[in-house]
Amino acid sequence: MDSSRRLQALRKLLAPQKLDFLLVTHLPNVRYLSGFTGSSAVLLVGGRENVLFTDGRYTRQAREEARAARVVIVRENALIAAGEWLAQKRRRATSVGIEGEHLSVASEALLRDAVRRHCRLLPKNGMVERLRMVKDEEEIKSLRVAAQLGSNLFRTALRAVRSGNPETDVAAKLEFAARRAGAEGMSFSTIVASGARSALPHGHASATPIPRRGFVVLDFGVILTGYCSDMTRTVHVGRPTAKHCGWYEAVREAQLAAIAAVRAGASAGTVDAAARKILKDNGLGRYFTHSTGHGVGLEIHEAPRIGAGEPTILQPGMVITIEPGVYIPGQGGVRIEDMVVVRERDCEVLTSATKELIVV
Amino acid sequence: MDSSRRLQALRKLLAPQKLDFLLVTHLPNVRYLSGFTGSSAVLLVGGRENVLFTDGRYTRQAREEARAARVVIVRENALIAAGEWLAQKRRRATSVGIEGEHLSVASEALLRDAVRRHCRLLPKNGMVERLRMVKDEEEIKSLRVAAQLGSNLFRTALRAVRSGNPETDVAAKLEFAARRAGAEGMSFSTIVASGARSALPHGHASATPIPRRGFVVLDFGVILTGYCSDMTRTVHVGRPTAKHCGWYEAVREAQLAAIAAVRAGASAGTVDAAARKILKDNGLGRYFTHSTGHGVGLEIHEAPRIGAGEPTILQPGMVITIEPGVYIPGQGGVRIEDMVVVRERDCEVLTSATKELIVV
Repeated sequence: MDSSRRLQALRKLLAPQKLDFLLVTHLPNVRYLSGFTGSSAVLLVGGRENVLFTDGRYTRQAREEARAARVVIVRENALIAAGEWLAQKRRRATSVGIEGEHLSVASEALLRDAVRRHCRLLPKNGMVERLRMVKDEEEIKSLRVAAQLGSNLFRTALRAVRSGNPETDVAAKLEFAARRAGAEGMSFSTIVASGARSALPHGHASATPIPRRGFVVLDFGVILTGYCSDMTRTVHVGRPTAKHCGWYEAVREAQLAAIAAVRAGASAGTVDAAARKILKDNGLGRYFTHSTGHGVGLEIHEAPRIGAGEPTILQPGMVITIEPGVYIPGQGGVRIEDMVVVRERDCEVLTSATKELIVV
Repeated sequence: MDSSRRLQALRKLLAPQKLDFLLVTHLPNVRYLSGFTGSSAVLLVGGRENVLFTDGRYTRQAREEARAARVVIVRENALIAAGEWLAQKRRRATSVGIEGEHLSVASEALLRDAVRRHCRLLPKNGMVERLRMVKDEEEIKSLRVAAQLGSNLFRTALRAVRSGNPETDVAAKLEFAARRAGAEGMSFSTIVASGARSALPHGHASATPIPRRGFVVLDFGVILTGYCSDMTRTVHVGRPTAKHCGWYEAVREAQLAAIAAVRAGASAGTVDAAARKILKDNGLGRYFTHSTGHGVGLEIHEAPRIGAGEPTILQPGMVITIEPGVYIPGQGGVRIEDMVVVRERDCEVLTSATKELIVV
């Protein structure tokens, strides 16, 4: 992992933000910048030095993983230790950025006590997250492998999709296969939503038996070497009605249209609009109740958001999901989701599972 | 769930804290007080009214689950909506407590804008958490069932513990069985730490094959109807050396001594000291590097902390873990953990799996 390059990119942002340091407390950001994967640490990034504060459980691990930072092992609270370290500098008016979206009000108060009058704490939002939006080749490789595992697992899950089988059984078999294939965990609580439950965009697998006829939405992801995959496929149990075929085809067409709109220079809103237009043309616009996608990486939901009117300009190396869906209350729903890498002129689709309607 | 009683208990705390309202944003606290289990909501608890703010995804669910609160469905951000609702009261100097340990600095800023000059926001820590420390009979029942499932799963996991099998395979089989038994998920990332890795207090299951000889620490929990179980057993692969038998017996004796010290009126520190003394007497004191236990309920780690010198007085109905351990770097480790309910004169042990040393 090219920690030095990432830290250098962040350091360049300090001066324009009038900061001497950024205190990174959000663990995925700590990991991204330093390589440290432990469960407790704060990272202080400054113009001249980077210091990782963690505790005695992680002495060896921190030194092995966080090569580009000086490691300080603390006895008590890493945040307070970082504050005291800053206070000891005794520079007047040191400006320290804090991660406002992640640091709690109580932690900020502890930190304020620790730095005393030596520092000004300035809440900043999304400084590291904006860097993380564009993935480097190593990250894209990790995401490609995770997405490929997801596609393979879909076939495993499919074998458990049959009328009468509880949704949780499908989830259990899928998660078991994921573990055996080396996944560190699932990216989020697995969604298996069948029949009328397929109209719930977040229908986590329940004890409900899969009905004799209807859609089954499978939405799941694995974590592999820290990176999350995310995919959705919708299959049909029993012969689909013409109406169901129509919904499925509309969503599939919308998903392909959004993928076709992804390229460097396009706005996130344009991609969302491409999917939304197709569903609207099919009279299903009002049943598409969420945004078209989101960034994915060390976290399952990252910047950028791919939603209506979003101005973010797509850049090469961004990895996003494309996942339009329709949800007809009491009847059923369809969602199809791939992960794609933004390229100069188009995108690379990382999810290889078929999008033809599978009838089981 | 007796939502009215819980809300009433919290309301009684408002006046002594000079609060007109407490704005509850931590989801386990929202669930505890209102019964609402959705993934996005804030709950405003006042002397006369309780209002739950959530979005359109949860209209029906909120009305069904949160019987003791008025439900307001918001279009955008529930926190901002709650702030605006407070501002519309236009009472001067309304004092609103916020959950300082859970609300981020950025969210507090949004809320401050929303309430404008109509409210003072006062960070308060642990108001709901202190209520949650003492479980009611319904909660104890849920925890008992979850702990029993955990004990049953230990037997399943045990069948996968054999030399050469990767740790992840044990975790995968255990988690698969948990899912099939109806668990909503695992309480935390399953720990399967074998051989020298058993000396890592948080050795999540890795691809490492279980060695021919040595300890295997299994630490895991399930979530059932929202409540977490937590247990640890350490088994031995191959014939244990006299040294290993000594470590195991010392930890077992320490764990039983701590359990014997649990009763209403005892301090958390006394319970910790009971375990620590035995390990010290066995020359293992410096290898017991963490605290003896913690509360468990809707979250895997709750108040009270059962650590050295902790003054918290145990009360009937508290559910805590008792989990001393020793970790000898590079060699191996042993931990034994049960969940117990504090009773007037003793405690009820919820974890039924044997603590005799199992050799596989």
